[in-house]
Amino acid sequence: MLKLFLAPGSCALASRIALEEAGAAYETVRLDLRAGDQRKPEYLAINPKGRVPALVTDRGILTETPAILAFVAQSFPQAKLAPLDDPYAFARVQAFNSYLCSTVHPAHAHRTRGNRWADDPAAIEEMKRKAPEVVAACFELIEAQMFAGPWVMGGTYTICDPYLYTVASWLESDGIDPGRFPKVHDHRRRMAERPAVRKAQA
Amino acid sequence: MLKLFLAPGSCALASRIALEEAGAAYETVRLDLRAGDQRKPEYLAINPKGRVPALVTDRGILTETPAILAFVAQSFPQAKLAPLDDPYAFARVQAFNSYLCSTVHPAHAHRTRGNRWADDPAAIEEMKRKAPEVVAACFELIEAQMFAGPWVMGGTYTICDPYLYTVASWLESDGIDPGRFPKVHDHRRRMAERPAVRKAQA
Repeated sequence: MLKLFLAPGSCALASRIALEEAGAAYETVRLDLRAGDQRKPEYLAINPKGRVPALVTDRGILTETPAILAFVAQSFPQAKLAPLDDPYAFARVQAFNSYLCSTVHPAHAHRTRGNRWADDPAAIEEMKRKAPEVVAACFELIEAQMFAGPWVMGGTYTICDPYLYTVASWLESDGIDPGRFPKVHDHRRRMAERPAVRKAQA
Repeated sequence: MLKLFLAPGSCALASRIALEEAGAAYETVRLDLRAGDQRKPEYLAINPKGRVPALVTDRGILTETPAILAFVAQSFPQAKLAPLDDPYAFARVQAFNSYLCSTVHPAHAHRTRGNRWADDPAAIEEMKRKAPEVVAACFELIEAQMFAGPWVMGGTYTICDPYLYTVASWLESDGIDPGRFPKVHDHRRRMAERPAVRKAQA
């Protein structure tokens, strides 16, 4: 059975929602990031990067949210979580998720994990100060240019939706009023009502 | 015909190499990032993110290196640039490329583009100081844990290889001796000899 290593409040939620949407049989292992579970040897043996999520499959271990989401979509094609037979449409899905992982998530991480990129406390504080502005600029772009509606890619729900939902759930903690982004805000509300999302967050 | 917007020294090289490996018909448009071409209205109409690469297709525009690489692999299956019929193996490819775009590329960007995440010149300077240490830690992980050899994924060349080659080509500019990572260093040497790579860099 699939086993998902996750942590509350982390981007691993996106993978869990996708597994629920796919109707996959899986179990979860919860890490306590504040206690440093992700740095313990037993977890580094699973994911040497010391991050969540990690998905243990019968073939081996997968990491990185965009890769896990695409894996779920391809492994459970009946769930229709991605346009699997259309390289262009699939690439659009991948591009959106890649933007979340390469730009939006790092922008957010500068608020709480500035020590990844600086040692000087003043520099870390400066990143923390600017982070809400950087994250908000990302969401302005998503709202104005990238979000097709009613789902991220348009009329069809895809693996972009749980990932956006997860990253957008950090807005308040970043000190950003989600009401500034009406489409993303409404998407979050509709996502929260889905049975798969409720179950993933139970 | 496909049209790739790129800039010298940027991660767009990976997409160009993949197009060459695929034998794709394409043209290129070169942006001068120092002159700010990426912020001009005509380019923002193509990619509102103001970044390279962007690939114009007959269906629309694609951005984000991992998405473009997967698109090339799926659009030119005869080139065998990714394990397209194996969701697990494909996800391994995606996970590697996702690590490059979400962790390694941002680590590198802190050396020259710290103003994305801080305004204070001292903080930007501190990021610049620490960047080589952060990038080197990423390459230690790639060298020790992720690089199967002789190619990134093992015996078969994939879309991971041009991306690693591209990102590894920044090591010297980051002040890191590539000799610290013998497998990556040898990979770079072998990549540089490939006709597709020579052509992409001509």
